[in-house]
Amino acid sequence: MTKRALVFLASGAEEMETIIAVDTLRRAGVEVTLTGTEGDKLEYECSRHVTVKADETLKTTVDRKIDWDVVVIPGGAGGAKRLCDNLDVGAVIKEQVGKNGLVAAICAGPTVLKAHGIFNNADYALTSHPSVEAVLSDEYKYLQDRVVHSKNLITSRGPGTAIEWALKIAEVLEGKEKAQAVAGPMVVLKEQIPA
Amino acid sequence: MTKRALVFLASGAEEMETIIAVDTLRRAGVEVTLTGTEGDKLEYECSRHVTVKADETLKTTVDRKIDWDVVVIPGGAGGAKRLCDNLDVGAVIKEQVGKNGLVAAICAGPTVLKAHGIFNNADYALTSHPSVEAVLSDEYKYLQDRVVHSKNLITSRGPGTAIEWALKIAEVLEGKEKAQAVAGPMVVLKEQIPA
Ligand SMILES: [Cu+]
Repeated sequence: MTKRALVFLASGAEEMETIIAVDTLRRAGVEVTLTGTEGDKLEYECSRHVTVKADETLKTTVDRKIDWDVVVIPGGAGGAKRLCDNLDVGAVIKEQVGKNGLVAAICAGPTVLKAHGIFNNADYALTSHPSVEAVLSDEYKYLQDRVVHSKNLITSRGPGTAIEWALKIAEVLEGKEKAQAVAGPMVVLKEQIPA
Repeated sequence: MTKRALVFLASGAEEMETIIAVDTLRRAGVEVTLTGTEGDKLEYECSRHVTVKADETLKTTVDRKIDWDVVVIPGGAGGAKRLCDNLDVGAVIKEQVGKNGLVAAICAGPTVLKAHGIFNNADYALTSHPSVEAVLSDEYKYLQDRVVHSKNLITSRGPGTAIEWALKIAEVLEGKEKAQAVAGPMVVLKEQIPA
Protein backbone atom coordinates (compact mmCIF):
# COMPACT_ATOMS: atom_id res chain seq x y z
CA MET A 1 0.00 0.00 0.00
CA THR A 2 1.17 3.52 -0.73
CA LYS A 3 2.75 5.20 2.28
CA ARG A 4 1.49 8.63 3.26
CA ALA A 5 3.41 11.56 4.68
CA LEU A 6 2.06 14.77 6.14
CA VAL A 7 4.34 17.82 6.04
CA PHE A 8 3.39 21.02 7.89
CA LEU A 9 3.72 24.38 6.15
CA ALA A 10 3.77 27.61 8.16
CA SER A 11 4.82 31.19 7.42
CA GLY A 12 8.54 31.47 7.98
CA ALA A 13 9.23 27.78 7.34
CA GLU A 14 12.70 26.98 6.06
CA GLU A 15 11.88 26.46 2.39
CA MET A 16 14.85 24.19 1.65
CA GLU A 17 13.98 21.83 4.50
CA THR A 18 10.29 21.80 3.58
CA ILE A 19 10.83 21.23 -0.14
CA ILE A 20 13.61 18.66 0.32
CA ALA A 21 11.30 16.57 2.53
CA VAL A 22 8.35 16.75 0.11
CA ASP A 23 10.39 16.22 -3.05
CA THR A 24 12.61 13.41 -1.75
CA LEU A 25 9.67 11.48 -0.28
CA ARG A 26 7.70 11.86 -3.52
CA ARG A 27 10.73 10.53 -5.42
CA ALA A 28 10.53 7.50 -3.09
CA GLY A 29 6.90 6.91 -4.06
CA VAL A 30 5.42 8.26 -0.83
CA GLU A 31 2.13 10.15 -1.17
CA VAL A 32 2.96 13.49 0.42
CA THR A 33 0.49 16.13 1.61
CA LEU A 34 1.88 19.59 2.30
CA THR A 35 -0.69 21.03 4.66
CA GLY A 36 -1.18 24.74 5.31
CA THR A 37 -1.44 25.34 9.05
CA GLU A 38 -2.87 28.88 9.14
CA GLY A 39 -6.64 28.86 8.61
CA ASP A 40 -7.81 29.11 5.01
CA LYS A 41 -4.43 30.28 3.77
CA LEU A 42 -2.76 28.26 1.01
CA GLU A 43 0.19 30.50 0.11
CA TYR A 44 3.02 30.72 2.63
CA GLU A 45 5.96 33.08 2.55
CA CYS A 46 8.89 31.09 3.85
CA SER A 47 11.98 32.17 5.79
CA ARG A 48 13.93 33.40 2.74
CA HIS A 49 10.87 34.91 1.05
CA VAL A 50 10.06 32.08 -1.34
CA THR A 51 6.28 31.61 -1.47
CA VAL A 52 5.19 27.97 -1.48
CA LYS A 53 1.64 26.74 -1.95
CA ALA A 54 0.11 24.16 0.37
CA ASP A 55 -1.79 21.22 -1.13
CA GLU A 56 -4.68 21.78 1.27
CA THR A 57 -5.53 23.40 4.60
CA LEU A 58 -4.95 21.62 7.91
CA LYS A 59 -8.72 21.62 8.45
CA THR A 60 -9.16 19.58 5.25
CA THR A 61 -6.28 17.34 6.31
CA VAL A 62 -7.84 16.65 9.70
CA ASP A 63 -11.29 16.05 8.14
CA ARG A 64 -9.80 13.42 5.81
CA LYS A 65 -8.81 11.31 8.85
CA ILE A 66 -5.78 9.74 7.18
CA ASP A 67 -3.52 7.30 9.00
CA TRP A 68 -0.18 9.00 8.32
CA ASP A 69 2.91 6.86 7.99
CA VAL A 70 4.97 9.88 9.02
CA VAL A 71 4.26 13.39 10.23
CA VAL A 72 7.03 15.83 9.25
CA ILE A 73 7.98 19.06 11.04
CA PRO A 74 10.33 21.33 9.02
CA GLY A 75 12.42 24.05 10.63
CA GLY A 76 12.94 27.71 10.12
CA ALA A 77 12.77 29.71 13.34
CA GLY A 78 9.64 31.66 12.39
CA GLY A 79 7.80 28.64 11.00
CA ALA A 80 8.66 26.44 13.97
CA LYS A 81 7.50 29.17 16.38
CA ARG A 82 4.12 29.21 14.64
CA LEU A 83 3.89 25.41 14.82
CA CYS A 84 4.75 25.61 18.53
CA ASP A 85 1.83 27.98 19.08
CA ASN A 86 -0.64 26.02 16.91
CA LEU A 87 -2.80 23.70 19.02
CA ASP A 88 -4.26 21.98 15.95
CA VAL A 89 -0.74 21.07 14.84
CA GLY A 90 0.02 19.82 18.33
CA ALA A 91 -3.13 17.65 18.24
CA VAL A 92 -2.13 16.04 14.94
CA ILE A 93 1.36 15.22 16.22
CA LYS A 94 -0.02 13.89 19.51
CA GLU A 95 -2.47 11.66 17.67
CA GLN A 96 0.39 10.33 15.53
CA VAL A 97 2.49 9.65 18.62
CA GLY A 98 -0.49 8.07 20.37
CA LYS A 99 -0.64 5.48 17.56
CA ASN A 100 3.11 5.00 17.93
CA GLY A 101 3.45 6.49 14.44
CA LEU A 102 6.62 7.93 12.95
CA VAL A 103 7.44 11.62 13.49
CA ALA A 104 10.28 13.51 11.79
CA ALA A 105 11.60 16.98 12.64
CA ILE A 106 14.53 19.09 11.53
CA CYS A 107 16.36 22.28 12.50
CA ALA A 108 14.06 24.24 14.84
CA GLY A 109 11.33 21.63 14.23
CA PRO A 110 12.14 19.58 17.34
CA THR A 111 11.22 22.61 19.51
CA VAL A 112 7.64 21.99 18.32
CA LEU A 113 7.76 18.62 20.08
CA LYS A 114 8.83 20.27 23.31
CA ALA A 115 6.21 23.02 23.03
CA HIS A 116 3.44 20.43 22.78
CA GLY A 117 4.95 18.19 25.46
CA ILE A 118 5.69 15.33 23.07
CA PHE A 119 8.31 12.60 23.55
CA ASN A 120 9.72 14.35 26.60
CA ASN A 121 10.29 12.72 29.96
CA ALA A 122 10.91 9.66 27.86
CA ASP A 123 13.93 7.83 26.61
CA TYR A 124 14.07 9.61 23.25
CA ALA A 125 17.27 10.83 21.68
CA LEU A 126 17.17 13.71 19.23
CA THR A 127 19.14 16.41 17.52
CA SER A 128 18.23 19.84 16.13
CA HIS A 129 19.76 22.99 14.76
CA PRO A 130 22.76 23.84 16.98
CA SER A 131 21.12 27.19 17.84
CA VAL A 132 18.30 25.46 19.78
CA GLU A 133 20.39 22.74 21.44
CA ALA A 134 20.18 24.53 24.81
CA VAL A 135 16.37 24.66 24.61
CA LEU A 136 16.13 20.90 24.07
CA SER A 137 19.03 19.33 25.92
CA ASP A 138 17.38 19.56 29.34
CA GLU A 139 14.35 17.51 28.32
CA TYR A 140 15.76 15.15 25.71
CA LYS A 141 18.82 12.98 25.28
CA TYR A 142 20.55 15.41 22.92
CA LEU A 143 22.95 14.19 20.23
CA GLN A 144 24.98 16.23 17.73
CA ASP A 145 24.72 13.64 14.95
CA ARG A 146 23.49 14.84 11.54
CA VAL A 147 20.48 12.51 11.68
CA VAL A 148 19.17 10.78 14.82
CA HIS A 149 16.75 7.86 14.54
CA SER A 150 15.38 7.02 17.99
CA LYS A 151 12.42 4.63 18.01
CA ASN A 152 9.65 6.41 16.06
CA LEU A 153 11.41 9.79 15.94
CA ILE A 154 13.81 10.94 13.21
CA THR A 155 15.46 14.31 13.77
CA SER A 156 18.12 16.33 12.00
CA ARG A 157 20.00 19.64 12.07
CA GLY A 158 19.53 22.03 9.15
CA PRO A 159 19.22 22.57 5.39
CA GLY A 160 22.61 20.90 4.87
CA THR A 161 21.42 17.70 6.56
CA ALA A 162 17.92 17.72 5.09
CA ILE A 163 18.61 15.30 2.24
CA GLU A 164 20.15 12.75 4.62
CA TRP A 165 17.15 13.17 6.93
CA ALA A 166 14.64 12.78 4.09
CA LEU A 167 16.47 9.70 2.81
CA LYS A 168 16.36 8.22 6.32
CA ILE A 169 12.58 8.76 6.42
CA ALA A 170 12.34 7.17 2.95
CA GLU A 171 14.43 4.25 4.18
CA VAL A 172 12.17 3.65 7.18
CA LEU A 173 9.00 3.87 5.06
CA GLU A 174 10.11 2.19 1.85
CA GLY A 175 13.25 0.25 2.68
CA LYS A 176 16.95 0.75 2.17
CA GLU A 177 16.99 -0.31 -1.48
CA LYS A 178 14.36 2.25 -2.39
CA ALA A 179 16.19 4.99 -0.46
CA GLN A 180 19.41 4.11 -2.28
CA ALA A 181 17.62 4.11 -5.64
CA VAL A 182 16.31 7.60 -4.89
CA ALA A 183 19.71 8.87 -3.67
CA GLY A 184 21.55 7.83 -6.85
CA PRO A 185 19.93 10.21 -9.36
CA MET A 186 19.99 12.99 -6.76
CA VAL A 187 23.82 12.81 -6.90
CA VAL A 188 24.31 12.97 -3.13
CA LEU A 189 27.65 12.39 -1.44
CA LYS A 190 28.46 8.75 -0.63
CA GLU A 191 28.22 9.41 3.11
CA GLN A 192 24.67 10.74 2.65
CA ILE A 193 23.36 7.49 1.13
CA PRO A 194 21.67 5.04 3.55
CA ALA A 195 24.27 2.30 4.03
CA MET B 1 26.89 47.31 -3.68
CA THR B 2 24.33 44.58 -3.28
CA LYS B 3 24.84 41.77 -5.77
CA ARG B 4 21.86 40.67 -7.83
CA ALA B 5 20.94 37.18 -9.00
CA LEU B 6 18.27 36.17 -11.48
CA VAL B 7 16.83 32.65 -11.16
CA PHE B 8 14.53 31.25 -13.85
CA LEU B 9 11.32 29.47 -12.83
CA ALA B 10 9.50 27.20 -15.30
CA SER B 11 6.84 24.52 -14.95
CA GLY B 12 8.54 21.25 -14.14
CA ALA B 13 11.59 22.89 -12.55
CA GLU B 14 13.37 20.80 -9.92
CA GLU B 15 12.05 22.52 -6.79
CA MET B 16 14.99 21.55 -4.55
CA GLU B 17 17.53 23.00 -6.98
CA THR B 18 15.49 26.16 -7.51
CA ILE B 19 14.83 26.80 -3.83
CA ILE B 20 18.35 25.91 -2.71
CA ALA B 21 19.77 28.49 -5.14
CA VAL B 22 17.36 31.25 -4.07
CA ASP B 23 17.56 30.55 -0.33
CA THR B 24 21.34 30.08 -0.12
CA LEU B 25 22.07 33.21 -2.16
CA ARG B 26 19.64 35.25 -0.03
CA ARG B 27 21.42 33.94 3.09
CA ALA B 28 24.60 35.32 1.51
CA GLY B 29 23.03 38.76 1.17
CA VAL B 30 22.48 38.54 -2.58
CA GLU B 31 19.30 40.20 -3.88
CA VAL B 32 17.60 37.34 -5.71
CA THR B 33 14.77 37.60 -8.23
CA LEU B 34 12.89 34.40 -9.05
CA THR B 35 11.41 35.17 -12.45
CA GLY B 36 8.43 33.36 -13.98
CA THR B 37 9.23 32.47 -17.57
CA GLU B 38 5.75 31.63 -18.91
CA GLY B 39 3.82 34.77 -19.85
CA ASP B 40 1.74 36.30 -17.06
CA LYS B 41 1.89 33.18 -14.90
CA LEU B 42 3.28 33.55 -11.39
CA GLU B 43 2.51 30.11 -9.91
CA TYR B 44 4.58 27.21 -11.19
CA GLU B 45 4.02 23.53 -10.50
CA CYS B 46 7.46 22.02 -10.18
CA SER B 47 8.75 18.53 -11.02
CA ARG B 48 7.54 16.90 -7.77
CA HIS B 49 4.30 18.88 -7.70
CA VAL B 50 5.30 21.59 -5.27
CA THR B 51 3.86 24.92 -6.44
CA VAL B 52 6.28 27.83 -6.10
CA LYS B 53 5.46 31.46 -6.75
CA ALA B 54 7.66 33.66 -8.90
CA ASP B 55 8.59 37.13 -7.65
CA GLU B 56 7.67 38.64 -11.01
CA THR B 57 7.24 37.76 -14.67
CA LEU B 58 10.16 37.61 -17.09
CA LYS B 59 8.61 40.52 -18.97
CA THR B 60 8.85 42.67 -15.84
CA THR B 61 12.38 41.41 -15.26
CA VAL B 62 13.47 42.36 -18.77
CA ASP B 63 11.76 45.76 -18.52
CA ARG B 64 13.70 46.53 -15.33
CA LYS B 65 16.99 46.28 -17.27
CA ILE B 66 19.04 45.08 -14.30
CA ASP B 67 22.73 44.28 -14.62
CA TRP B 68 22.67 40.78 -13.10
CA ASP B 69 25.71 39.54 -11.23
CA VAL B 70 24.63 36.00 -11.99
CA VAL B 71 21.92 34.35 -14.09
CA VAL B 72 20.88 30.98 -12.67
CA ILE B 73 19.40 28.03 -14.59
CA PRO B 74 17.93 25.30 -12.35
CA GLY B 75 17.30 21.77 -13.58
CA GLY B 76 14.38 19.39 -13.69
CA ALA B 77 13.92 17.74 -17.08
CA GLY B 78 10.55 19.37 -17.77
CA GLY B 79 11.58 22.80 -16.58
CA ALA B 80 14.87 22.75 -18.50
CA LYS B 81 13.04 21.65 -21.68
CA ARG B 82 10.78 24.71 -21.36
CA LEU B 83 13.79 26.99 -20.84
CA CYS B 84 15.42 25.43 -23.93
CA ASP B 85 12.35 26.33 -25.99
CA ASN B 86 11.96 29.85 -24.54
CA LEU B 87 13.64 32.45 -26.76
CA ASP B 88 13.19 35.23 -24.18
CA VAL B 89 15.15 33.13 -21.69
CA GLY B 90 17.80 32.51 -24.32
CA ALA B 91 18.04 36.25 -24.97
CA VAL B 92 18.58 37.03 -21.26
CA ILE B 93 21.34 34.42 -20.97
CA LYS B 94 22.99 35.61 -24.19
CA GLU B 95 22.95 39.20 -22.97
CA GLN B 96 24.56 38.08 -19.70
CA VAL B 97 27.24 36.15 -21.59
CA GLY B 98 27.75 39.08 -23.96
CA LYS B 99 28.69 41.21 -20.93
CA ASN B 100 31.00 38.41 -19.79
CA GLY B 101 28.66 38.00 -16.80
CA LEU B 102 28.42 34.95 -14.56
CA VAL B 103 26.03 32.12 -15.50
CA ALA B 104 25.19 29.13 -13.28
CA ALA B 105 23.35 25.96 -14.27
CA ILE B 106 22.60 22.65 -12.60
CA CYS B 107 21.26 19.20 -13.44
CA ALA B 108 19.48 19.46 -16.84
CA GLY B 109 20.07 23.25 -16.76
CA PRO B 110 23.26 23.10 -18.86
CA THR B 111 21.21 21.71 -21.78
CA VAL B 112 19.60 25.16 -21.92
CA LEU B 113 23.02 26.60 -22.78
CA LYS B 114 23.38 24.15 -25.63
CA ALA B 115 19.84 24.77 -26.90
CA HIS B 116 20.54 28.49 -27.18
CA GLY B 117 24.04 27.99 -28.59
CA ILE B 118 25.79 29.50 -25.57
CA PHE B 119 29.37 28.82 -24.46
CA ASN B 120 29.79 26.07 -27.08
CA ASN B 121 32.61 25.87 -29.58
CA ALA B 122 34.54 27.50 -26.79
CA ASP B 123 36.96 26.40 -24.19
CA TYR B 124 34.35 25.93 -21.46
CA ALA B 125 34.29 22.99 -19.09
CA LEU B 126 31.02 21.96 -17.50
CA THR B 127 29.13 19.21 -15.75
CA SER B 128 25.43 18.31 -15.55
CA HIS B 129 23.10 15.59 -14.37
CA PRO B 130 24.66 12.27 -15.44
CA SER B 131 21.52 11.54 -17.52
CA VAL B 132 22.31 14.37 -19.96
CA GLU B 133 26.08 13.89 -20.15
CA ALA B 134 25.82 12.37 -23.63
CA VAL B 135 23.85 15.38 -24.89
CA LEU B 136 26.55 17.79 -23.73
CA SER B 137 29.86 15.96 -24.01
CA ASP B 138 30.18 16.47 -27.77
CA GLU B 139 30.01 20.26 -27.56
CA TYR B 140 31.60 20.97 -24.19
CA LYS B 141 34.62 19.81 -22.22
CA TYR B 142 32.59 17.54 -19.93
CA LEU B 143 33.69 16.86 -16.34
CA GLN B 144 32.07 14.59 -13.75
CA ASP B 145 33.00 16.82 -10.79
CA ARG B 146 30.19 17.83 -8.42
CA VAL B 147 30.72 21.52 -9.18
CA VAL B 148 32.65 22.90 -12.15
CA HIS B 149 33.77 26.53 -12.21
CA SER B 150 35.08 27.40 -15.66
CA LYS B 151 35.64 31.09 -16.32
CA ASN B 152 32.22 32.75 -15.95
CA LEU B 153 30.26 29.47 -15.88
CA ILE B 154 29.43 27.46 -12.73
CA THR B 155 27.71 24.12 -13.31
CA SER B 156 26.66 21.21 -11.13
CA ARG B 157 24.90 17.83 -11.17
CA GLY B 158 21.68 17.46 -9.19
CA PRO B 159 19.70 18.19 -5.99
CA GLY B 160 22.43 16.51 -3.93
CA THR B 161 25.09 18.90 -5.25
CA ALA B 162 22.88 22.00 -5.22
CA ILE B 163 24.09 23.39 -1.90
CA GLU B 164 27.76 23.09 -2.96
CA TRP B 165 26.86 24.79 -6.24
CA ALA B 166 24.96 27.61 -4.53
CA LEU B 167 27.81 28.12 -2.06
CA LYS B 168 30.25 28.33 -4.98
CA ILE B 169 28.09 31.04 -6.58
CA ALA B 170 27.97 32.83 -3.21
CA GLU B 171 31.75 32.54 -2.95
CA VAL B 172 32.29 34.08 -6.40
CA LEU B 173 29.84 36.93 -5.69
CA GLU B 174 30.50 37.63 -2.01
CA GLY B 175 33.85 36.03 -1.22
CA LYS B 176 34.98 32.87 0.52
CA GLU B 177 34.49 34.18 4.04
CA LYS B 178 30.87 35.04 3.37
CA ALA B 179 30.23 31.65 1.77
CA GLN B 180 31.77 29.92 4.77
CA ALA B 181 29.70 32.05 7.14
CA VAL B 182 26.56 31.00 5.26
CA ALA B 183 27.56 27.31 5.18
CA GLY B 184 28.08 27.05 8.94
CA PRO B 185 24.48 27.54 10.15
CA MET B 186 23.23 25.41 7.23
CA VAL B 187 25.11 22.46 8.83
CA VAL B 188 26.61 21.21 5.57
CA LEU B 189 29.26 18.52 5.39
CA LYS B 190 32.85 19.74 5.69
CA GLU B 191 33.61 18.79 2.08
CA GLN B 192 30.72 21.00 0.91
CA ILE B 193 32.16 24.17 2.47
CA PRO B 194 34.24 26.41 0.16
CA ALA B 195 37.84 25.73 1.24
CU1 LIG C 1 16.58 26.48 10.21
